[in-house]
Amino acid sequence: MSIFLCGELDAGERQAWLQALRAALPGECIEASLERLISADVDIALVANPPPGSLQGLPALRLVQSLWAGVDRLLADPTLPAGVPLARMVDPAMSAAMAETALWAVLALQRGFFSYARQQAAGQWRALPQRRADELQVVVLGLGEMGCAVAARLAAQGLRVRGWRQGGSRSADRAVPVPVDEGPDALAPLLAGSDIVVNLLPLTPRTKGLFDARTLATMKPGAALVNLARGAHVVEADLLAALASGQLSHAVLDVFQTEPLPPGHPFWAHPQVTVLPHAAAQTDPRSAAAVVAANVRALRAGQPLAHLVDRRRGY
Amino acid sequence: MSIFLCGELDAGERQAWLQALRAALPGECIEASLERLISADVDIALVANPPPGSLQGLPALRLVQSLWAGVDRLLADPTLPAGVPLARMVDPAMSAAMAETALWAVLALQRGFFSYARQQAAGQWRALPQRRADELQVVVLGLGEMGCAVAARLAAQGLRVRGWRQGGSRSADRAVPVPVDEGPDALAPLLAGSDIVVNLLPLTPRTKGLFDARTLATMKPGAALVNLARGAHVVEADLLAALASGQLSHAVLDVFQTEPLPPGHPFWAHPQVTVLPHAAAQTDPRSAAAVVAANVRALRAGQPLAHLVDRRRGY
Repeated sequence: MSIFLCGELDAGERQAWLQALRAALPGECIEASLERLISADVDIALVANPPPGSLQGLPALRLVQSLWAGVDRLLADPTLPAGVPLARMVDPAMSAAMAETALWAVLALQRGFFSYARQQAAGQWRALPQRRADELQVVVLGLGEMGCAVAARLAAQGLRVRGWRQGGSRSADRAVPVPVDEGPDALAPLLAGSDIVVNLLPLTPRTKGLFDARTLATMKPGAALVNLARGAHVVEADLLAALASGQLSHAVLDVFQTEPLPPGHPFWAHPQVTVLPHAAAQTDPRSAAAVVAANVRALRAGQPLAHLVDRRRGY
Repeated sequence: MSIFLCGELDAGERQAWLQALRAALPGECIEASLERLISADVDIALVANPPPGSLQGLPALRLVQSLWAGVDRLLADPTLPAGVPLARMVDPAMSAAMAETALWAVLALQRGFFSYARQQAAGQWRALPQRRADELQVVVLGLGEMGCAVAARLAAQGLRVRGWRQGGSRSADRAVPVPVDEGPDALAPLLAGSDIVVNLLPLTPRTKGLFDARTLATMKPGAALVNLARGAHVVEADLLAALASGQLSHAVLDVFQTEPLPPGHPFWAHPQVTVLPHAAAQTDPRSAAAVVAANVRALRAGQPLAHLVDRRRGY
């Protein structure tokens, strides 16, 4: 049997993945092109945003292992083989990277470093009021591996951190390092008391467009939004309106409705928007290959697979 | 006896200090103007960058308590009464603020967030290589209260952190949360192995101009400098040359030879220089008043004073 590495990878990335995977799985046949494989022998597909239809014609497929944490785009492909188990990438190194990005954004918002950057551009020297960590409430939406890593890292700085998850979410029985509120009714009061909102929810039909005009209006006036999850969580026109009205003071956005963010999009030059190129937490083949290898070995040994996606829930 | 609050404070700052100090020291007479005091009754001066000569004509003076951590400017005043004990501000809340600023700068350097800001300004969408925390060595120069707080906070993120202090420094017997090298000979090899250098040294004749062309040339090519101490630690023309040659990749500067940084100074518009307006750790009267109060009460009770400056060493 053999393993098909498939997706939107440039030559350097493909090489890094093949090298890391082959080192982690000696004896396995791993190729990035179906021309180097016999389709009927492929029982595992490792996928990184594969073009729709990529996984058709693989009759022996027994596992689709995503190399990325988010699987919303994968699930939107109607040709995705229906009966085959699908696993997400859950790598502590990736959660650490996400925690670093969230911490950097929150520190910058707490201490005014985005404002100081604007002042530098204007040649303006002016110290701003200094807020202590314990004067800010931060809420982390979504309490999976990444949400919990982010919440723990932020709480360790002395910030007042709360978590929120949907009712009946997959993480419902997970131990969370901060106080948790749950369900739609708890969201508005939580947002109303929070200075910074960090979004790490999965993208599902229930969370799509969550940050629309109605939700943004329930946020604390002058609060900031840090979106590290999916662009479709945010109605971009409504966010722009909330920034224009002063309802929100700043947004740090790693993800967008359309990626790459199109030239001329108002976010690019917006003084209150920080644009990151979907780089908050990139999968690192050096550590992720071990996560893949564990699931591959489990499949070969008939053991339970880790990090399986609940297709009905969408994550 | 009475207490004279003296220094470069605007009306709002002066009011905040008086309010916090009077709350922390009920029964004490505390005024910000000598016209409201009898000079011969003033036994304590609380000073925040006082204009030279401010402390003359106070015959009963028994303590000069700085409201700021750095006392280099105070010691440069030849009219500073010679025999009077001088105490620095050492406030854990201020060390926490410094640790936040250092952590924000280091995270931004580790993960490329300054580069992403430049890319946003250019409308460029490009993910950069993602460095793990444990791939970077950070060295903290100066291991007083602030240096130790910074080192501990950085080490907690998984960064490889080392500390450096001068031989025979005041902090020589302090427990430091990271491995320490000591003395001039240890500096060059340490700098040669460090990706980020965070300067928190006191400004003394020994440390003035430390970051000149010779020292900058010993740094690891492409390293970054974070100066949160004093502008006079850095020879600004030499730093500009090191950035131009690529020897250094970036500098985060909170302090400058001349403050406010003069209009037209090359740092303002330099894409590899982040300018902060001496705001890395501002004294917060809400917590610092308790530090002042403890020393005032110690003086009144004939107890030992805390955080006394060694005038010979200069800090």
